Amino acid sequence: MSFVDWREMSSGNCPVGRGLDLLGKPWALLVVRDLMLGIRRFEDLHAKLGASRPVLAARLRELEAAGVVLRVPYQDAGQRSRHEYRLTDRGRDLYPVVMAVREWGERHLLDGEGAPIISVHRGCGARVETSLGCSAGHTGLGIKDTEAIAGPGARRRTA
Amino acid sequence: MSFVDWREMSSGNCPVGRGLDLLGKPWALLVVRDLMLGIRRFEDLHAKLGASRPVLAARLRELEAAGVVLRVPYQDAGQRSRHEYRLTDRGRDLYPVVMAVREWGERHLLDGEGAPIISVHRGCGARVETSLGCSAGHTGLGIKDTEAIAGPGARRRTA
Repeated sequence: MSFVDWREMSSGNCPVGRGLDLLGKPWALLVVRDLMLGIRRFEDLHAKLGASRPVLAARLRELEAAGVVLRVPYQDAGQRSRHEYRLTDRGRDLYPVVMAVREWGERHLLDGEGAPIISVHRGCGARVETSLGCSAGHTGLGIKDTEAIAGPGARRRTA
Repeated sequence: MSFVDWREMSSGNCPVGRGLDLLGKPWALLVVRDLMLGIRRFEDLHAKLGASRPVLAARLRELEAAGVVLRVPYQDAGQRSRHEYRLTDRGRDLYPVVMAVREWGERHLLDGEGAPIISVHRGCGARVETSLGCSAGHTGLGIKDTEAIAGPGARRRTA
């Protein structure tokens, strides 16, 4: 495994960067969080998040265009037809991202206040958490147990 | 375990929201990513990221204020003293966040191009990945295996 000087490598196709192009926009991941909690209607998302309507609408459009969110029509009695928003499989796949941010925030930013939400395993009621392991079965790894190597998409940065 | 209508609950102390106040700013998590790759100097970060100097300087100041980054002086021969940036334990703790975003991006946004970076276990060389499990030892969980319950910090939203 040869040494890589990451300063020389391009970030152009970095999946972290690409993910953040979408998820790094204001409110985007908070919309995903609330959809995961079953909050699906524009008015409810607006009331809960406090994001302005145009910003919230823009985020939902972008999440829909990225295949993270699906717009589904519904109609309450005597009202005109509206849409609600549901996570697609691609959107539900963001659960580890939301969980990792939540765990970091709980550990470092909560000031002893206690977590407002706890995720538990439906099967047994025990608390759910993310962890790092390797494909050979070693578990409980941290960053110091890991090494970054160049993958098939690695390419040099052009100055 | 009683049903919670999350529309009625406050997000004011949500650790996801608090985490994103810091990490959701433009370039913040990409700076963390590059620090994890051992890129520590302002000029190198600037060249690699392409963020403007004022924006990059602001992000580094915020990450330092949040205890994620430490400024450490260094001096090259014949040059004035400068600073480089290193992750603190709190910063290294962001590894699962970066990994979770990376994995999602790899799965959904790479267009078959292949990952530019692969994280492997130093001990055995096998690929490192995040996973969800519960504290009772059940592994390989997805969002549908989980349920969100009110934690000790849960409180009602005020209209």
